[in-house]
Amino acid sequence: MAVYTEVNDEDLARFLSQYDVGSAVSCKGIAEGVENTNYLLRTQKGVFILTLYEKRVKRDDLPFFVELMEHLSARGVTCPTPIRRRDGAVLGELAGRPAAMVSFLEGMWIRKPTVEHCAAVGRALAAMHNAVADFAPQRPNALSLAGWRQLYEQAQGRADSVLAGLDVAIAEELAFHAGHWPQDLPVGTIHADLFPDNVFFLNGRLSGLIDFYFACTDILAYDVAICLNAWCFEQDHAWNANKGRAMIAGYRAVRPLAPEEMAALPVLARGSALRFMLTRLVDWLNVPPGALVKPKDPLEYWKKLRFHQRIAAVAEYGFEP
Amino acid sequence: MAVYTEVNDEDLARFLSQYDVGSAVSCKGIAEGVENTNYLLRTQKGVFILTLYEKRVKRDDLPFFVELMEHLSARGVTCPTPIRRRDGAVLGELAGRPAAMVSFLEGMWIRKPTVEHCAAVGRALAAMHNAVADFAPQRPNALSLAGWRQLYEQAQGRADSVLAGLDVAIAEELAFHAGHWPQDLPVGTIHADLFPDNVFFLNGRLSGLIDFYFACTDILAYDVAICLNAWCFEQDHAWNANKGRAMIAGYRAVRPLAPEEMAALPVLARGSALRFMLTRLVDWLNVPPGALVKPKDPLEYWKKLRFHQRIAAVAEYGFEP
Repeated sequence: MAVYTEVNDEDLARFLSQYDVGSAVSCKGIAEGVENTNYLLRTQKGVFILTLYEKRVKRDDLPFFVELMEHLSARGVTCPTPIRRRDGAVLGELAGRPAAMVSFLEGMWIRKPTVEHCAAVGRALAAMHNAVADFAPQRPNALSLAGWRQLYEQAQGRADSVLAGLDVAIAEELAFHAGHWPQDLPVGTIHADLFPDNVFFLNGRLSGLIDFYFACTDILAYDVAICLNAWCFEQDHAWNANKGRAMIAGYRAVRPLAPEEMAALPVLARGSALRFMLTRLVDWLNVPPGALVKPKDPLEYWKKLRFHQRIAAVAEYGFEP
Repeated sequence: MAVYTEVNDEDLARFLSQYDVGSAVSCKGIAEGVENTNYLLRTQKGVFILTLYEKRVKRDDLPFFVELMEHLSARGVTCPTPIRRRDGAVLGELAGRPAAMVSFLEGMWIRKPTVEHCAAVGRALAAMHNAVADFAPQRPNALSLAGWRQLYEQAQGRADSVLAGLDVAIAEELAFHAGHWPQDLPVGTIHADLFPDNVFFLNGRLSGLIDFYFACTDILAYDVAICLNAWCFEQDHAWNANKGRAMIAGYRAVRPLAPEEMAALPVLARGSALRFMLTRLVDWLNVPPGALVKPKDPLEYWKKLRFHQRIAAVAEYGFEP
């Protein structure tokens, strides 16, 4: 949750006057996303999410995110659609921050995903990957191998305070990936953060994807691996083969996965687990004492990583051949 | 801002099934109020605020608050209206907490109130005081003289760390009020926390009052004094006589203020300033190091208190006789 920036009524009225949405009827700061300030805004003409981009999001990256959402919306992938100002621009300025309005998506995220939810997410992810085939803008993934090493360096010498032996184990895992990370798999625009809280369902059907602020250009199957980690383990961190099978089958029903992509899943899933473990670890180690926000447990992802390390061949996940 | 309790979709569906509002279409945690968890909930039949009452609100007090909102709504004072369940109850249980749904009020709170806003708040406060004339339930004000002394004891010995000499000055102020607090003024149900963020405006008109969770039975003119402190000082804590005059005139246009009530305003305003200074002081002294929430400055209210101390007669505020 995060509302970092207060917006006063005068500034909001001035901001909205640049759009064709009427004036504000209500505006509530919402506890959504951790990088930006988000308001749920009702105007005379509709309901919108108003986002103020805080420091952690680079200003230069904003056009990439906005164009991606427009591209996906135009191709039928339900996601927030940026609202253009009267002058055609999408990005404005509010309370000293870059700001944009997007359409409001109905639906709620699922706290306890079922096999059916996993299948639906697989289909939606594949539909997104198909839809970006002609999306030209590129954005390197700052949280791939080089980024992992930087995160490790931020945690180095302190990782063992979380788990004995973790420091050396991470170094070994980084060395493994340096030698084994796939080089020739299909690449495209990936969501890179499609956790349950970024997928909305309404009446049992997937109603949209949100939060494209980690989207980047990377291996498409890596996005699948991120979702397997985020959706297909139980609360006790045990792998649920039924959910994994459903997700892969859902994905394949919409976009084929080549044998090389399938074969790479164990490495990609290890890499994905390492990436989330490292960002959580750095957050964990840097929480000020007494802070009110409890960071997420890095060891959840360490356990997932250990599971993937023991997978010798992709068939061991229980996927259909 | 506060979202303390996560609500999962299954629990929410079960909760909503007890009401006649249809199923949830979206549910966003909102940054509103500091005592409770609030969600902005859209169902098939409307928009609601869903409140989960956290520990700081006493369970036994909830019926008082709920009945007050129903009473005011029935008498035309625009405020959130509690939604009854099919079994007639207003309070349910969600995620292990007492929970209630109220109607959603359109409007936004004003960050920089003008003279006109102050007049409107005066009128609305008087209308509320008229409307509670036949509201029977009573709730003692836990934050009156005895409560102030308890707060002082929590801060004692540490107040001087905020301002040299504050400890003794508070003790003197408490002694003053023990001898001068009015005993015979009209009493009724007061809002007790009608700060700008609890008053909504829409298109320049006051559209409703919210957050009745400090409401209690106390001197009606004390509620006026709280509003004078909350609305009629500038950012630099200087008294704005035009705003004060407008608020008092607005109030008197709807409910007369007897000469004794007017004459008591300097003492009531001192008491009100002391009350908010003390709660802020205790919060200030008890913030864990490194906490992400910056507490409100207690000295803002100390400066207001000092201003009121120098008022010898109510005419010095600039009010019309």
